[in-house]
Amino acid sequence: MFDAESLTYDANGLIPAIAQSPEGEVLMLAWMNAEAVRRTLATGKVTYWSRSRQDYWVKGETSGHHQRLIEMRVDCDRDTLLVIVDQAGPACHTNRRSCFYRAVRDGGEVEIMSPMAGA
Amino acid sequence: MFDAESLTYDANGLIPAIAQSPEGEVLMLAWMNAEAVRRTLATGKVTYWSRSRQDYWVKGETSGHHQRLIEMRVDCDRDTLLVIVDQAGPACHTNRRSCFYRAVRDGGEVEIMSPMAGA
Repeated sequence: MFDAESLTYDANGLIPAIAQSPEGEVLMLAWMNAEAVRRTLATGKVTYWSRSRQDYWVKGETSGHHQRLIEMRVDCDRDTLLVIVDQAGPACHTNRRSCFYRAVRDGGEVEIMSPMAGA
Repeated sequence: MFDAESLTYDANGLIPAIAQSPEGEVLMLAWMNAEAVRRTLATGKVTYWSRSRQDYWVKGETSGHHQRLIEMRVDCDRDTLLVIVDQAGPACHTNRRSCFYRAVRDGGEVEIMSPMAGA
């Protein structure tokens, strides 16, 4: 049986979770505590712990941009999660598909992704 | 100009960096401080800060499994990096291509990736 307590959490009780689409796009990184891990697995709705709000954050609950869990993966050190997700619309609060929309090129920073139309 | 000091580091002066292959495979997550970010960009050799050794860690320096930087990306909150890398052989110290080789399936944990042959 998978036990959320078997993961390694940081001093704040949190573990980073990378969200990736089945097509391979890294969408975002956010944080979970053990209860958020359990809720994500139990409900299939990817649930983070919001460090700014200090509360559970069911992704998409207010924005409508849900993340449905396809599979949760655990790394070798058990201190990072990779969640493969079916992402509705943009993952980023800027309405971009991914939060990683800036690239360092030629010593400067450039935007490589535009906000999604109608998102 | 891109300035490593413009990123948001945690209380330990670190920022998580997700390493991904150009084909889309998430290989690992490790940590950088501002100087590791600068060294990575300056040398093209992906350089982390080892929290266990409390020292710089040029990926592959001892294992030979180098990571050559293809592109560094910055997320919306500037508190996570995504590095697209050319990974020589396995990224994981277990000789697996990726550190995320365990999946939670049917309530249990299964290995979904074997160590690389000859790695």
